[in-house]
Amino acid sequence: MGEWEDEEERAYFQSVISAFKYYRTYSLQRIAKSEQYFKSLPDHHQKLMECYLQHLNIIKNCVEANDYLIKMIIKDADYMFSNVNPVDQNNIQPERKSCYDPIITEILSEFPPDGKKPEDVKILVPGAGLGRLAFEIAKLGYTCQGNEFSLFMLLASQFVLNKCCNTNIHKVYPWVHQFVNNLKPEHQTQSVSFPDINPRDLSTNSSFTMAAGDFLEVYTEDNVWDCVATCFFIDCANNVAAFIETIYKILKPGGIWINLGPLLYHFSDVPQEDSIEPSYEVVRQIIVGLGFVIEKEKMDVSTSYAQNPNSMLQYQYRSVFFICRKCLNV
Amino acid sequence: MGEWEDEEERAYFQSVISAFKYYRTYSLQRIAKSEQYFKSLPDHHQKLMECYLQHLNIIKNCVEANDYLIKMIIKDADYMFSNVNPVDQNNIQPERKSCYDPIITEILSEFPPDGKKPEDVKILVPGAGLGRLAFEIAKLGYTCQGNEFSLFMLLASQFVLNKCCNTNIHKVYPWVHQFVNNLKPEHQTQSVSFPDINPRDLSTNSSFTMAAGDFLEVYTEDNVWDCVATCFFIDCANNVAAFIETIYKILKPGGIWINLGPLLYHFSDVPQEDSIEPSYEVVRQIIVGLGFVIEKEKMDVSTSYAQNPNSMLQYQYRSVFFICRKCLNV
Repeated sequence: MGEWEDEEERAYFQSVISAFKYYRTYSLQRIAKSEQYFKSLPDHHQKLMECYLQHLNIIKNCVEANDYLIKMIIKDADYMFSNVNPVDQNNIQPERKSCYDPIITEILSEFPPDGKKPEDVKILVPGAGLGRLAFEIAKLGYTCQGNEFSLFMLLASQFVLNKCCNTNIHKVYPWVHQFVNNLKPEHQTQSVSFPDINPRDLSTNSSFTMAAGDFLEVYTEDNVWDCVATCFFIDCANNVAAFIETIYKILKPGGIWINLGPLLYHFSDVPQEDSIEPSYEVVRQIIVGLGFVIEKEKMDVSTSYAQNPNSMLQYQYRSVFFICRKCLNV
Repeated sequence: MGEWEDEEERAYFQSVISAFKYYRTYSLQRIAKSEQYFKSLPDHHQKLMECYLQHLNIIKNCVEANDYLIKMIIKDADYMFSNVNPVDQNNIQPERKSCYDPIITEILSEFPPDGKKPEDVKILVPGAGLGRLAFEIAKLGYTCQGNEFSLFMLLASQFVLNKCCNTNIHKVYPWVHQFVNNLKPEHQTQSVSFPDINPRDLSTNSSFTMAAGDFLEVYTEDNVWDCVATCFFIDCANNVAAFIETIYKILKPGGIWINLGPLLYHFSDVPQEDSIEPSYEVVRQIIVGLGFVIEKEKMDVSTSYAQNPNSMLQYQYRSVFFICRKCLNV
C-alpha cells in the first residue's frame, strides 16, 4: 500500500477524521435529548426515577473519556497521512477473540514449529481489524501480515501498536451508547482496559506487518502465501467470488485457506452499494469450482462478536469453519 | 375505541395501506438490484454461482405469494375504516409464542378455574399484536381484551380472526427478505402455514375482544381489571413510568400485573421521538414507588422473538419476568 496521494483517498481520510471529531458533539446531543424529555415529564414521574438523571450524567463522563481517547488516536493522523507507508508497522495489538483459537490451532497443526522454520511460513490475515489475530500468529514466530481497509480500524491499531507500551494503560467505555436492554445502569457504563498484552512484547526477530488498502487491489501477485486466514471477513465483499478467487490465486500451490465466520454480507441493503448474498451452499460451490479441495468443514460454530456480556439481548453467530487447500499442481 | 373519524387518524390509516401496497414494488426492486449486479460480474463468476440467479427467481415467487396475502389482508380495509368499532371482535388468532407459557401458568394459578368463575375474571393484554396471547387466555374461559395500536398488526389480526375459518389455509414467507446469514438458499424461502388453530374454535360463550388505540388513551377508568398481562410491551413507551402508572390505576385493588420481556425501548434513537431508557433497576424503583408489591421476579428468562430458526445469526433475549400486586387498600 503506497501513499495516500490521490484526492479521493485524501477526502476519505478527512471524512474519517471528521467522524472521530464529531463523536463527542453527537453523543452529548443524544444524551441532552433524553435529559430534556425527562425534565418535561410530570414531577412525580421524575421523582420515581431520580437516579436516571444522575445516570445520564455518568454517561456524559464516559463519553468524555472515550473522546479523550479518540483525540489521542487521531493526534498523529496528519503525520500518518504524510507518511509514505502509513500503517505498515513491525508491531502488535490487543483484544482477545475466542474465535481465533480454532484458526491458530489449525495453523500450528499444519505448520508445526518443529518442522519448517516458522519465519519461512508466510501467513496473510485479510480484514485484520485492529490486528490482533495477525499479532497472535506473528507471536508464534510465523511471518504474518494483516491487511485492513477501514481507516477507523487502522487509526486505532496504529495507536495501540505504536503508542501503547504497557498493559492496561487506557480505558474505553464500549457500551455507553447502548441505552436499551440494560439490567443495571452500570452495565451501560462499564469500562474495558487495554491493551491486555504489551504490544512491545513481540520478539525483535518476529515479522509482523499491517498493510492498508483494499484486499483486491493490494494482493495481485500469484503464489505468494502459505496460508490465508480469514475471520469474519469474506462477507465484507460486494462479490464474494472475487474474494475467494483472489485468495486462491495468491496462495502457493498446496497452500491452505482457513476461514471462520457467518455470512452477514456487509453491503446488503446499503444504499449506493452493489451486493449479492449467496448462501453458504453456493459459497461452497464457488470454493470447489475454483479448484480448492475442502479438507475440513464445520457448521454451527458458536461465536460472538464485540458483545456486551451483560446485555438483555445476546447475539450468537452460528459460524462456518473450514480449511481448504489449493492443489499442488497448478 | 371509537371511529377513525379525525383527519390525522385517516392519514395514518392511509399511510399504512400505502406501505402494504408498496410491498411488492419495493421487494422486487431490491431483488432486481442484486440481479443486475450479478449480471455485471465476470462470466466465470456467474457460472460459479449459476444457481444464485435461480434462487433470486424463487424469491420473486415468494414475494408474489406474500403480496397476494397482503391484498387479502387489506381488501376489507375500507369497510373496516368506516366501521364504528373497527377491530373489536369476538374472535381469535394464531402464532404460538413460547413466552406465553409462564404468563398463562401464572394466570391459572392466581385465578384457578375451579375458584371464581373464569368469565368473571377480567384480563387485559396491552400490546396484543395479532392477539394470540389474549386469545389463549380467552380460550381458558377468562374475559379477555387485547389492545393494539399498530394498524399493521390490527389489519393482520382482523384478517386472521374474521377471514380464516380453518387451520393452515394460508402460507407466508416470513424470512424471504433475510438475504444474509443463510446456510442454504431454501432457508430464505421457507414458508409458514397459518393459522395453526382454527379461530372459530373458541367456544361461543367465551368473551374475547380486541380494542384498537393508544394504551394510555383507551384505558382511563380506574379499578377495572383483575389482571394486566404484558409480553414484550412495556418498552414500547416513550415514558415507561406512564405505562406502569396506568397499569396500576386500571387494576382493581388486589389485582395483579404479570410481565415478561426485555427493555428494547422502541423509540430509542428514533428521529422525532422522545425517549428515556431506564435500566431494569430503575424500572423496578418505579414499580415499587407507585405502590406495587413485587411477588415474583426472575431474570435471565431465555426468550426469542419472531426468529428464523435456521439463520446463522441467532438472537436471544434474557427477559425479565415478574408478578406484582396492587395493594388491597387504596
